Amino acid sequence: MRWKCTCAYDGTDFNGWQSQPLGNTVQDILEARLAYIFKKPVRIHASGRTDAGVHARGQVFHFDAEWNHAPVDMLRGMRSNVPRTIQVIDIRQVSELFHARFSAVKKRYIYQIHLGQASPFDLRYFWSVGSRVPDVQKMQDAATVLLGKHDFSAFAAKIATEDQGDTVKTLYRLDVVQRGKKVLIITEGSGYLYKMVRSLAAALFHVGIGKLTKADIAYFLESRVRTQAIESAPAEGLILDKVFYNPNHTRLKNV
Amino acid sequence: MRWKCTCAYDGTDFNGWQSQPLGNTVQDILEARLAYIFKKPVRIHASGRTDAGVHARGQVFHFDAEWNHAPVDMLRGMRSNVPRTIQVIDIRQVSELFHARFSAVKKRYIYQIHLGQASPFDLRYFWSVGSRVPDVQKMQDAATVLLGKHDFSAFAAKIATEDQGDTVKTLYRLDVVQRGKKVLIITEGSGYLYKMVRSLAAALFHVGIGKLTKADIAYFLESRVRTQAIESAPAEGLILDKVFYNPNHTRLKNV
Repeated sequence: MRWKCTCAYDGTDFNGWQSQPLGNTVQDILEARLAYIFKKPVRIHASGRTDAGVHARGQVFHFDAEWNHAPVDMLRGMRSNVPRTIQVIDIRQVSELFHARFSAVKKRYIYQIHLGQASPFDLRYFWSVGSRVPDVQKMQDAATVLLGKHDFSAFAAKIATEDQGDTVKTLYRLDVVQRGKKVLIITEGSGYLYKMVRSLAAALFHVGIGKLTKADIAYFLESRVRTQAIESAPAEGLILDKVFYNPNHTRLKNV
Repeated sequence: MRWKCTCAYDGTDFNGWQSQPLGNTVQDILEARLAYIFKKPVRIHASGRTDAGVHARGQVFHFDAEWNHAPVDMLRGMRSNVPRTIQVIDIRQVSELFHARFSAVKKRYIYQIHLGQASPFDLRYFWSVGSRVPDVQKMQDAATVLLGKHDFSAFAAKIATEDQGDTVKTLYRLDVVQRGKKVLIITEGSGYLYKMVRSLAAALFHVGIGKLTKADIAYFLESRVRTQAIESAPAEGLILDKVFYNPNHTRLKNV
């Protein structure tokens, strides 16, 4: 039986999603919990990694395991004895066609910037840019260059092994919206290279404060080469908001 | 020279305000920073302690030290090399009449309750009460019993040594306001006994869900004895919002 799970986490206290020798990753914690519930090791597969400090409102993972009780009992089990900042939101049985990573058709990330002095309560979830005030119109205008299908190599901190030969992605949405002192960059894309959203966020912010221009963004994109002019904005501002799936793959099995 | 400082902190990661042998308290961290700046030990005096996990938007403390540079340079120094979740907001020279604890005339606390499922992002700052839905009108109505000058011994988790013989406090304000899934209890009082705000919050919540009545609250208050019917709501929902001072004591000196 294959199970699709959706979870939220505050990434502040974890070493990212992916299991690693030092432990304390979201995957490690959830797998340990599943091992307890199922009395055997259970391997989980996420829609993708998130780096240390990055948050999620709707990370998705799947795993295979037999379960003869109500799904809500499994959900209850997965919500007990894990840190309160990891929260399984939903669990449902799906067709074995479903794969959390390969069935994903689109992912929405939100990058959060805080202007002026961010309070200690906002600092975990925003890039606090202090007194620098970006021109949000300029950011939105430069974003149009990045929309659509492109080789985004210039906006990857490095090309991960699994991304080699697969650096062309499609951005369906790249919006910059201001709400008071908060500037949110909302992106929906077919996929993302390593630290790509954080690189896009920093590049757009630098356009906003006049350090880069829309033409620079177009030039970098075209060049397909990472330069020092492009930084990665801090992890704490990034939230994996939602993963969108092929509806055929998320159909419940046997119903 | 006496300095009045206002600071905000997210209490999640600290062992409360007050210095203690285990360290990692807000006071320890700020005193260590001041010792570095002034090259000698500096003792700070707060408006009052906050317990482990309790937050502050406007905690106030004072200390005495000679400083011949601009105050903004001291502020900058105090904001460097401390955890990001402790933030000195303001620093100003005051008359030596000023005492962070004894000059305070009123303190505002906000207790935050989250109905339904709180996200991992809200859990640090709210008491998450799950599926229990309080009647906010009933809470507000019961709050009227507590307004004004009373011996609040029944709402203290214990009577601290320094509070003995001083258990009469005045609540100038005790409001219960709902904003969507968030219920805030806002109190302004002359002072508070140990865990008093958290006890008031739990008692009002229990009125809201029908476990206690307004008459019970009046009876407990009158009895001046703590009973098991009164609990302390969790620390993470509590925020020290603002400390109000005698304006004569906060006057700048020499100006």
